[in-house]
Amino acid sequence: MIQKHKNECGMYGDIKLFAGTGSHYLAQKISDYLSVPLSKQKVNHFPNDNLWVRLKSSIRGQDVYVIQTTSRPVHRNIMELLITLQTMRLDSAGRVTAVVPYLSYARSDKKDKPRTPITARLIADMIEVAGADRYMTLDLHAGQIQGFFSIPGDVLSAFHILTDNIARMLPQMTDPVVLTVDLGFAKKGRNFAAVLDLPIAFVEKRRRGKKDKAQAITLIGDIADRDVIIVDDEVDTAGSVVKAVKLAKEHGARNIYLTFVHPILSPPAVERLAKLPLTKIIATDTVPISPEDQTLLGDKLQICSVAPLLGEVILRAHEGRSVGEMFNE
Amino acid sequence: MIQKHKNECGMYGDIKLFAGTGSHYLAQKISDYLSVPLSKQKVNHFPNDNLWVRLKSSIRGQDVYVIQTTSRPVHRNIMELLITLQTMRLDSAGRVTAVVPYLSYARSDKKDKPRTPITARLIADMIEVAGADRYMTLDLHAGQIQGFFSIPGDVLSAFHILTDNIARMLPQMTDPVVLTVDLGFAKKGRNFAAVLDLPIAFVEKRRRGKKDKAQAITLIGDIADRDVIIVDDEVDTAGSVVKAVKLAKEHGARNIYLTFVHPILSPPAVERLAKLPLTKIIATDTVPISPEDQTLLGDKLQICSVAPLLGEVILRAHEGRSVGEMFNE
Amino acid sequence: MIQKHKNECGMYGDIKLFAGTGSHYLAQKISDYLSVPLSKQKVNHFPNDNLWVRLKSSIRGQDVYVIQTTSRPVHRNIMELLITLQTMRLDSAGRVTAVVPYLSYARSDKKDKPRTPITARLIADMIEVAGADRYMTLDLHAGQIQGFFSIPGDVLSAFHILTDNIARMLPQMTDPVVLTVDLGFAKKGRNFAAVLDLPIAFVEKRRRGKKDKAQAITLIGDIADRDVIIVDDEVDTAGSVVKAVKLAKEHGARNIYLTFVHPILSPPAVERLAKLPLTKIIATDTVPISPEDQTLLGDKLQICSVAPLLGEVILRAHEGRSVGEMFNE
Amino acid sequence: MIQKHKNECGMYGDIKLFAGTGSHYLAQKISDYLSVPLSKQKVNHFPNDNLWVRLKSSIRGQDVYVIQTTSRPVHRNIMELLITLQTMRLDSAGRVTAVVPYLSYARSDKKDKPRTPITARLIADMIEVAGADRYMTLDLHAGQIQGFFSIPGDVLSAFHILTDNIARMLPQMTDPVVLTVDLGFAKKGRNFAAVLDLPIAFVEKRRRGKKDKAQAITLIGDIADRDVIIVDDEVDTAGSVVKAVKLAKEHGARNIYLTFVHPILSPPAVERLAKLPLTKIIATDTVPISPEDQTLLGDKLQICSVAPLLGEVILRAHEGRSVGEMFNE
Amino acid sequence: MIQKHKNECGMYGDIKLFAGTGSHYLAQKISDYLSVPLSKQKVNHFPNDNLWVRLKSSIRGQDVYVIQTTSRPVHRNIMELLITLQTMRLDSAGRVTAVVPYLSYARSDKKDKPRTPITARLIADMIEVAGADRYMTLDLHAGQIQGFFSIPGDVLSAFHILTDNIARMLPQMTDPVVLTVDLGFAKKGRNFAAVLDLPIAFVEKRRRGKKDKAQAITLIGDIADRDVIIVDDEVDTAGSVVKAVKLAKEHGARNIYLTFVHPILSPPAVERLAKLPLTKIIATDTVPISPEDQTLLGDKLQICSVAPLLGEVILRAHEGRSVGEMFNE
Amino acid sequence: MIQKHKNECGMYGDIKLFAGTGSHYLAQKISDYLSVPLSKQKVNHFPNDNLWVRLKSSIRGQDVYVIQTTSRPVHRNIMELLITLQTMRLDSAGRVTAVVPYLSYARSDKKDKPRTPITARLIADMIEVAGADRYMTLDLHAGQIQGFFSIPGDVLSAFHILTDNIARMLPQMTDPVVLTVDLGFAKKGRNFAAVLDLPIAFVEKRRRGKKDKAQAITLIGDIADRDVIIVDDEVDTAGSVVKAVKLAKEHGARNIYLTFVHPILSPPAVERLAKLPLTKIIATDTVPISPEDQTLLGDKLQICSVAPLLGEVILRAHEGRSVGEMFNE
Repeated sequence: MIQKHKNECGMYGDIKLFAGTGSHYLAQKISDYLSVPLSKQKVNHFPNDNLWVRLKSSIRGQDVYVIQTTSRPVHRNIMELLITLQTMRLDSAGRVTAVVPYLSYARSDKKDKPRTPITARLIADMIEVAGADRYMTLDLHAGQIQGFFSIPGDVLSAFHILTDNIARMLPQMTDPVVLTVDLGFAKKGRNFAAVLDLPIAFVEKRRRGKKDKAQAITLIGDIADRDVIIVDDEVDTAGSVVKAVKLAKEHGARNIYLTFVHPILSPPAVERLAKLPLTKIIATDTVPISPEDQTLLGDKLQICSVAPLLGEVILRAHEGRSVGEMFNE
Repeated sequence: MIQKHKNECGMYGDIKLFAGTGSHYLAQKISDYLSVPLSKQKVNHFPNDNLWVRLKSSIRGQDVYVIQTTSRPVHRNIMELLITLQTMRLDSAGRVTAVVPYLSYARSDKKDKPRTPITARLIADMIEVAGADRYMTLDLHAGQIQGFFSIPGDVLSAFHILTDNIARMLPQMTDPVVLTVDLGFAKKGRNFAAVLDLPIAFVEKRRRGKKDKAQAITLIGDIADRDVIIVDDEVDTAGSVVKAVKLAKEHGARNIYLTFVHPILSPPAVERLAKLPLTKIIATDTVPISPEDQTLLGDKLQICSVAPLLGEVILRAHEGRSVGEMFNE
Repeated sequence: MIQKHKNECGMYGDIKLFAGTGSHYLAQKISDYLSVPLSKQKVNHFPNDNLWVRLKSSIRGQDVYVIQTTSRPVHRNIMELLITLQTMRLDSAGRVTAVVPYLSYARSDKKDKPRTPITARLIADMIEVAGADRYMTLDLHAGQIQGFFSIPGDVLSAFHILTDNIARMLPQMTDPVVLTVDLGFAKKGRNFAAVLDLPIAFVEKRRRGKKDKAQAITLIGDIADRDVIIVDDEVDTAGSVVKAVKLAKEHGARNIYLTFVHPILSPPAVERLAKLPLTKIIATDTVPISPEDQTLLGDKLQICSVAPLLGEVILRAHEGRSVGEMFNE
Repeated sequence: MIQKHKNECGMYGDIKLFAGTGSHYLAQKISDYLSVPLSKQKVNHFPNDNLWVRLKSSIRGQDVYVIQTTSRPVHRNIMELLITLQTMRLDSAGRVTAVVPYLSYARSDKKDKPRTPITARLIADMIEVAGADRYMTLDLHAGQIQGFFSIPGDVLSAFHILTDNIARMLPQMTDPVVLTVDLGFAKKGRNFAAVLDLPIAFVEKRRRGKKDKAQAITLIGDIADRDVIIVDDEVDTAGSVVKAVKLAKEHGARNIYLTFVHPILSPPAVERLAKLPLTKIIATDTVPISPEDQTLLGDKLQICSVAPLLGEVILRAHEGRSVGEMFNE
Repeated sequence: MIQKHKNECGMYGDIKLFAGTGSHYLAQKISDYLSVPLSKQKVNHFPNDNLWVRLKSSIRGQDVYVIQTTSRPVHRNIMELLITLQTMRLDSAGRVTAVVPYLSYARSDKKDKPRTPITARLIADMIEVAGADRYMTLDLHAGQIQGFFSIPGDVLSAFHILTDNIARMLPQMTDPVVLTVDLGFAKKGRNFAAVLDLPIAFVEKRRRGKKDKAQAITLIGDIADRDVIIVDDEVDTAGSVVKAVKLAKEHGARNIYLTFVHPILSPPAVERLAKLPLTKIIATDTVPISPEDQTLLGDKLQICSVAPLLGEVILRAHEGRSVGEMFNE
Repeated sequence: MIQKHKNECGMYGDIKLFAGTGSHYLAQKISDYLSVPLSKQKVNHFPNDNLWVRLKSSIRGQDVYVIQTTSRPVHRNIMELLITLQTMRLDSAGRVTAVVPYLSYARSDKKDKPRTPITARLIADMIEVAGADRYMTLDLHAGQIQGFFSIPGDVLSAFHILTDNIARMLPQMTDPVVLTVDLGFAKKGRNFAAVLDLPIAFVEKRRRGKKDKAQAITLIGDIADRDVIIVDDEVDTAGSVVKAVKLAKEHGARNIYLTFVHPILSPPAVERLAKLPLTKIIATDTVPISPEDQTLLGDKLQICSVAPLLGEVILRAHEGRSVGEMFNE
């Protein structure tokens, strides 16, 4: 177990943890890890759809962390985050850190076509203008989004949590192979496979023509008679997963495992996943999964918490100690 | 009628008008006033609650106006506005103007209590960081919000539209008096009354005690046997209006008129207003009123469009001509 | 009495207090409250009307407060404040707070008419660009001016000091009523009256016509045979006060008290006030009143110092403790 | 052939083209395309290794484009670009566009490990702080780098130029297949193959162990008895290409073609490529290849100029016309 | 005579000239040169020492120049300049240029000692934050102050106007020699002498000791039996001039001429100069000299106007034409 | 000897020293002075001429100093400095100070001619945008460059180190006189002479005509039969020194000493200096002199280290103590 240090001097005052509406459960686990109680704020949602925030205790000169994921309802959650950040800045916090376990809009990270936005940059700008001094997040869709921020941040990965869990299951698997459902994830999939010392295969999707919206889908690599571990950074509506599982079965896959960091699970993802022949679904709690959805997915679903990871990084950030050494870097 | 000029040279390219989802109807009327067709954009709302915008034609080097009110759904409308502004900036627009007929969060304009936000400033910062070069809006809750923006803007008033309409009804009224329902509106109410050369009275609300949430409500000034014109900048849930009408009737008011700029009309405002003994409700179209709500309010409701005002100001801003001279300033 | 704590660690170094030329006396009282001696600087005013400042001791890494009001001579005082702030920033202060008991130009807070400035925003921008990390001030003409600053600040109110003093006099008064001389102050006047549990009345001024500069002046509410407490945020030339007193007497007022926070008292205010039938004039020391003027006003004048309030807030800001809890917030 | 329009009005004055030391030859071709002569500047390189730039004619109020690639000598070329941009800004140019055919440091686009830089963001910041209003570049290593800039830009792709050239050779090829040498390029490689309607294969490299620097290299997909087209965004020392060619030959490849946008060709790339059994090497002129190197590579080398592409985009940017429509977007 | 061009298109709208209170006379001469009438504004100076500005006509989209020197009363003049700039920016001017013939505080341009300000940088920051897009000024005390501005500017010199005038007097002089009164001006004095092809001499002042405030003053170079031309950038209280004239006479000087750009002439400069044995005093009108002072100095005083220089540069800035070519650069 | 204090609390964490490639030797001496070991970083220079930096230990929350001079290779050294600064900022350093013993490009500090850069301002902007919170440097070519920075800094002088050394040699000299080789250095030369209580003389260079590049060179002041101390801030190619020594000898100088702060010594400076009849060359180690060059200059060369000065200032900056008091200010 990781030992906790306490600096005597408190460069940035004391740790103050606030839980945004989107991350109550995760924030409580971080609070437990740190043995620091959650500070309280009042969040009003008025009839005119405006939000209003009031901190219930002073954070003047303190080292403040607001934990708020930005999953559905996305815009309300983003706005609550920004209003809270501004409130903290205006109340003369010593340092304000936005802890955003899942950063929404991360897929809008470049202009693929003319006259389109780069919304992830906009989100970064908004977090800065609201008043964050630092940010923390997990497994950005593209690592380059770090460069959208001017403020420093800790961009962490939960993939080692997933590989640790998969590794424990490997003895029960037959000739396992890693499969990625999107070529944009090929390199990260390779890294994932390398950690587990497994081979890799790819699903390739290609539009049949400019006007034809149908896709040709092929499988590159060998998965016949093998257990398959599908890996991705997030699962949204699970459309790609459905196709990949079907293709894998056609190519002779045995058991299929699915693992990913961010359980966006937009409708009808849960219904789809519940029906698929998946042996195990392994994800984290960067986005909360409702009790109903958890019930629907049943025993197949395994949730690995990122709370100890975030808690430890918050502690080290507060104390001015290395985060890299947690990963032997 | 106001005559239109055209500058030959187009300092900022051509006028391009875009209608945000929140202001389709008003934008069309502005388009009609200017005889400039609305440019088109695609707005996707994905299952993961993310928005995506694509302009359907180039605005490179042009003088672009995006018309988007920020009423309910507030956060979605704000985010669509910001994403559209950023898209325009990244596409090298000549100049981008955010036309926001109703600016939400304007009541969060100062810290009345410790540890609270000034969200109106945050909204201003977000509009600027997204990429607006200028902004236009109508009847800010507090005129000081102009100072929250670093970019120049045209902050217009629609009260002269309301007074013009009231003035036409005055011959039918008996000893009319203006009544304000909030002391924070006292000065603007006085100005409204002064234009119509009418006396003024005030509703004063006061909490009975620190813990007691009940309010004492009194009427200062004389309204007995008079027709009463209640005036405000916006009507939200209409709670204050209900109280004011009741108090006015108790003090011997005859017919009661209600006029205001922004018809926020958060539930149950429409139900409340429909039941009240109001002779006339006069508002503008800065916020769209649904057809159902219009039916509920029936003939009592009179909507005065701000489209000619916004259209003319857009034209003058484009041509580099005085806006002040529209008001003899 | 409020107890003082001392943090051992000095997040921002030690408190260093500097008195600007405009606030020598007030700064000394703050120094006394805190038992922290004033640090010294040299301020030269050269024949070419340029100012030059030199701090007489190092403030490197310290928590520095420069106390400078911005009353007459306004521009010289503003410039001295800005030069001092820049000097502190360039000398690597740990944190610089501009303590401005009275913020000048606060009435230029919005564009009422086209082609006019918002000078209060300019002042805020200048204070920031000069190098202040935070600011403190008292009773801004409009609370929204807080939103003109990007830096955090403590905007305090001295009205509770005034109401405490009035409350002590109430037993001697006959049916007291609060009177405001400007409708823009109606809401704050109501709050003032509510604290004292008194009724309120308003003076309404209205221009007779567009070209006619004469004003119609009326009194709304009942003051006959009552003692009247006129309240405002500041008194400048006292023109409005003269009119209000005259009107109040015409409406049967008994004794008249005048209370306000900022004694700007531009000529001929003191002459006017000295002649008026006022029982008491109660103000604070955010703006210094010259000994001559104090003599002229004699016993009627009562000055309540804001030094303990500012001193305590400086202490709490330094130690990272709540300011809100001073007011049970 | 693309037809040129001229706007009569010159929103940004006239086009002025300047050739940086790194792009003399390409700039001349752009100048030819536009029939706009290159403006001249003096670039001194002093004994103390300082650069100094002087523009030989005024660019006051004009629409200025400085064309400067940032290949070897990288730091000198970057600094010359920045100094030139600042000179233009200080000389009151109407608009300044940095045209950087190859943007160096683009591979330092995220923190893979703790305590490392994101130099591509630094370069973007430097270009902005020097004074560019806009930028143009080609085929960024990661499209997300667009989001590192706050200023708008045109990030173009030359891959359609490469596919056009490959397409013409396809009739001579036998069962061609596209091969990528890095999984990070998998998605772009797929797009490249999709345009040509060809299958795709991947080289996968994997470190054998944490301490072992040796790599396992495998080929995923089928290339036996096929002509192979290796594609990448840039070729630096050609180490990966050497390995890929060897592997491809081991797996039964027939003829091998190599195509990429940016010919960095750091030593000993040219020696390596000259020795490899490559049928054709197809690249662009975003980075100049020295005459000696061209001779070494001989007939195998085919250079496709990006000058018409850049020239046309400059023209459209100047005239405020759509760039997207060049690509039917 | 310099010929005037007019661009048909007005990139930045039309020229609008505004005269600040400090430069009425000079602004009128610039207006005459350009045949562009002065636009009018209202400047109120209220009893509370606050300024208020209102432009009397719209400058929306126009190319606006506000001409305001910053001599005595320095702080009032600076503040009027800043308020006017902000007003113009908020009124959506096309481009705003601050024309400051004499930039005050230019001698506070570096920290010679610890804990002192760099007020010239503060002034630059304030001009920018108020809203100037560009600035123009004449003969900065140190040319490096250009680098204090982020915005582009035209920093002009009036020394060629002075040398032209001196050159016409040379035939009447006997063996003329240039003399500088401060070693900080040695290089500029050399340039001045070089243009006239004259030798140069220096006054050297040196404090006798750390505590002794008395100065040792010596003359380096040969002036015996020569006419002497004392040259400087500005004359403030004329204390150095008095000493230099005395020393020059002691060293056998014949007639003495005095020439400088900025006639600050702080008291008692005029009295001193009137008494000195000076043949001629030649200065410009960057700072206005009162009629009384002009009378005191009588025929000795010759004022060379900078209006044609500023007027021509304004014209060229407006039309996007070279300013350098006015000086064959 | 200067006594070292240690603050117990470490406002900015611990001192961390990093040596840039350009200042290894000097950094080691500073490390020795402070008894703080150098932290290590890895600096890769790749074949594509890109640099990459990785800090070998965490600097999270610490007080970091990177010591990097910017002499030849100038652009590589600047870029390494900037990349290192950004890396430190992104790694959440508590405070980052750029210690730049010699700031390159300082001679490009103003626009002497139209259409030229102010590169020193660009360098300041780049250091700020990369992430420095503070900077330290020695003897800027013009003190005004301090005003190019927005961040605070310590701009130190090593002249007192040079005068201390010269003072020790004075007893051996005959009627010593100080000589400056450039009139731009006249004032600083006077200050240098004043400290030593010596007279001063000047070399004046003047171009013979606009087209004629030949210079007239004269000597102002008396040096016959005297020992001469030539003083400057830096020596680059030593061209001016060669001319000054020749001229001095022609005017009867006896022994000649040369002293300056920054030994740029661009080729062929060392060859030239080695040949000149100089008794002594006294410089500092702000720029490293190669062992070969030191050998060439032999015993004549005396290097005075600035390490104790920089070390002491770093210590005081860290502890929040006065730097000025080191110089009795």
